[in-house]
Amino acid sequence: MSEPLQPIVVSGMRPTGRLHLGHLHGAIANWVKLQSNHRCFYFSADWHALTTSYDRTEVIRESQREMFVDWIAAGIDPERASLFIQSQVKEHAELYLLLGMITPLGWLERCPTFKDQKEQLTDRDLNLYGFLGYPVLMTADVVLYKANAVPVGVDQIPHLELSREIVRRFNFHFGEVFPEPKPLLTEAAKVLGTDGRKMSKSYGNAIDLGESAESTTKKIMGMVTDPSRKRRQDPGNPDVCGIYDLHKVYSPPEVLEWSATGCRSAGIGCVDCKKKLLEKLAPDQERLRERRESLLARPGDLDELIRIGTGKARAEAQRTMAEVREAMKL
Amino acid sequence: MSEPLQPIVVSGMRPTGRLHLGHLHGAIANWVKLQSNHRCFYFSADWHALTTSYDRTEVIRESQREMFVDWIAAGIDPERASLFIQSQVKEHAELYLLLGMITPLGWLERCPTFKDQKEQLTDRDLNLYGFLGYPVLMTADVVLYKANAVPVGVDQIPHLELSREIVRRFNFHFGEVFPEPKPLLTEAAKVLGTDGRKMSKSYGNAIDLGESAESTTKKIMGMVTDPSRKRRQDPGNPDVCGIYDLHKVYSPPEVLEWSATGCRSAGIGCVDCKKKLLEKLAPDQERLRERRESLLARPGDLDELIRIGTGKARAEAQRTMAEVREAMKL
Ligand code: SF4
Ligand code: SF4
Repeated sequence: MSEPLQPIVVSGMRPTGRLHLGHLHGAIANWVKLQSNHRCFYFSADWHALTTSYDRTEVIRESQREMFVDWIAAGIDPERASLFIQSQVKEHAELYLLLGMITPLGWLERCPTFKDQKEQLTDRDLNLYGFLGYPVLMTADVVLYKANAVPVGVDQIPHLELSREIVRRFNFHFGEVFPEPKPLLTEAAKVLGTDGRKMSKSYGNAIDLGESAESTTKKIMGMVTDPSRKRRQDPGNPDVCGIYDLHKVYSPPEVLEWSATGCRSAGIGCVDCKKKLLEKLAPDQERLRERRESLLARPGDLDELIRIGTGKARAEAQRTMAEVREAMKL
Repeated sequence: MSEPLQPIVVSGMRPTGRLHLGHLHGAIANWVKLQSNHRCFYFSADWHALTTSYDRTEVIRESQREMFVDWIAAGIDPERASLFIQSQVKEHAELYLLLGMITPLGWLERCPTFKDQKEQLTDRDLNLYGFLGYPVLMTADVVLYKANAVPVGVDQIPHLELSREIVRRFNFHFGEVFPEPKPLLTEAAKVLGTDGRKMSKSYGNAIDLGESAESTTKKIMGMVTDPSRKRRQDPGNPDVCGIYDLHKVYSPPEVLEWSATGCRSAGIGCVDCKKKLLEKLAPDQERLRERRESLLARPGDLDELIRIGTGKARAEAQRTMAEVREAMKL
C-alpha cells in the first residue's frame, strides 16, 4: 500500500439529533473545507453517546440518519470523505482495549473534561468506567486511521494532548506505529441562539440546519439583539448581537459594514438588519432543506453511502490493527 | 437457533508458558470433567495477560501454543470444547466497551483483586485503566457465551459477584439478555512445589505437565517432605507433606492408607513413599509427554483445531452481540 499523499483527518460527532446552525458553522463548514486537501474520515460517535447517556439509546439510530443527512446537505461529499458509524467498525473497541492497557488512571482522572462534566451533569452519576475512559476511546478513534490531524476547538486541546501522550507511550513500548495527531485549530464561528445564549437544542433556542425559510424568518425576526438597544433611535453594539454574528457568516463585506455602521449610529433598525440577513440566510436554509428532502426521499441511497463509507473505514482500520497486533506480538 | 440443552461453561487461562502439575490438578482436570455434561468454551486470555504485563508480550504467542498443547494432552477434547484465542474474537472487546459504560468506578476500585495485586506487584505500576477494568473484560468473556456457570476457586468469588452485578445492571436497563453466571466451585487439589511452597514457575519449584519420567523422578526424589521428619525413624505427618498431597491425586485408596499409616508410625521412609508415588506419577507424566510430542509434531493440526474452535466461539459471540445491539438500540 502506498503512503497517502494527503494528510489524514478524523473527526466524529455524537448522534444527538438534528443539527442546528451552531453545528454547521462551528464544525461542519470546516469539515467541508478540509475535504479538498485531506483524506477525511467522519463518523457518528454512537459509542461515545453512551458514555453520558447509556439509558437514552432510543434516540441514537434516528439521530444518526438525520445527522448524516445534515452533513451531506451541508456539503460533505461522501465520495471524498468516508462517512461511517463508529460501532460498525469493531476495531475501535479493540484498539480502545489495547490502549487502555497502557494508559495510567492518573492521566484520565486529571483530564479536565472528566472533572468538568462530572460537575456539570449533576443529574447523572458519571463515575462510570466507560466515562472515565472516554479519552482512550477518542484516541483509538483517531489513531486507528493514523490521523495526522484532528480538527479541534481550543477547549479540546487538553484532550488531544492526552491522546498524544498515549500515542507516545504506545510507540515507545511497541515501536513507531502511530503518528502523533496534531491539533488543527478551527476558528469556529460564534453562533448564538434566538435568546442570545449559546445555540443549543436543550435551551430551545436553536435554528435547525435546513429549517424552512418561513420558520427561519420567524425565528430571526423574534431573535434577541443587543439588549441595550431598546428603541429604534438607540445606537447599538453589533459586537454583542447574535444577528451581527450571523451576518459575519452569511453576508458579504459591504453588508457587514452597512450593518455595523448603521447599528452604531442608529441609522438602521434591528428589523432592517434582520431582513438584510435573511436575504442570504433564508435562501441558504431553503437550499439545505431541499437537499435534505431529496436525500430523505432516497433512504436506500443513504444506506448505501454509509455502507460504502463504513467499508472504507473498516479496511483502513483492519490494516492498522494488523500492524498493531504485529507490534504488540499478539 | 434452539436453546442449548447443556449448561454453558466458560473459562480462560493466561498464556504465561508451560503448565505444571499445579495447573493440571487445580484447573485443567476440572475442565476435563466438565466437558462431559456442559458446552465448554476454553480460551487463552491473551488480552488479560496484557493487564499486568503489556511490556512482556514477546512470550504470549509461544506460551499460547504450549498451553493449548498442554490442555489437549491433559484430556481437553477439542471436539467437545471450543478452544480459542480471546484476541481473535473481537466481540470480547466490543462487549467490554459496552459493559464499561454501565460499570461504576466504585465497584472496580473496591474489587479485592485490584487492591491486592496493586500491593503485591510493587515492582510495576498497575494504576492503569486496563488493569482497573479487568473484571469488566472478565465479565464480557463470560456473558458473551451466555455462560450459566464459571468454574472458580473461593478467592475468585468476589470477582464473579461483580460480574453478576454488572449483568443485573445491564439486564435492568436493556432487558434480560444475559443469564447471571453462577459460580461452579471447584475443589482444586493442593499441589506443592519441590521446596514445599505453592507450586509456581516463578519460585522455580514446579514440575511441568508432561516432564519426562526421568526428570519427574529426580524432582520428586529431591522434594521436601514433612520438615520435622528429620530421620528415617522419626514419625511424620502426611498432612503437611507435599508428597502425600500428590498421593491423593495419583494413588488408589489403599496406597493412600499405606502412606499415611506408614508415615505416622515411621513404618515407611520418605524414599519408599516417593517411589510408590512415582509408580503412578511417572507413567502418567510419560503419557502426557508422549501426547504433547505427538501434538507438537503436527503443528498444522493444532492450528486447525484452534481455527475451528475460534470459529465456533466467534459464531456464538456474534449471535450474542446481535442481541446486545438490538437491546441497546445501537
Ligand atoms: S442593528 Fe443589527 S447588529 Fe445592531 S443590534 Fe440590531 S440586529 Fe444587532
Ligand atoms: S513418608 Fe511420605 S507422607 Fe510421610 S513425610 Fe515422607 S514422603 Fe511425606
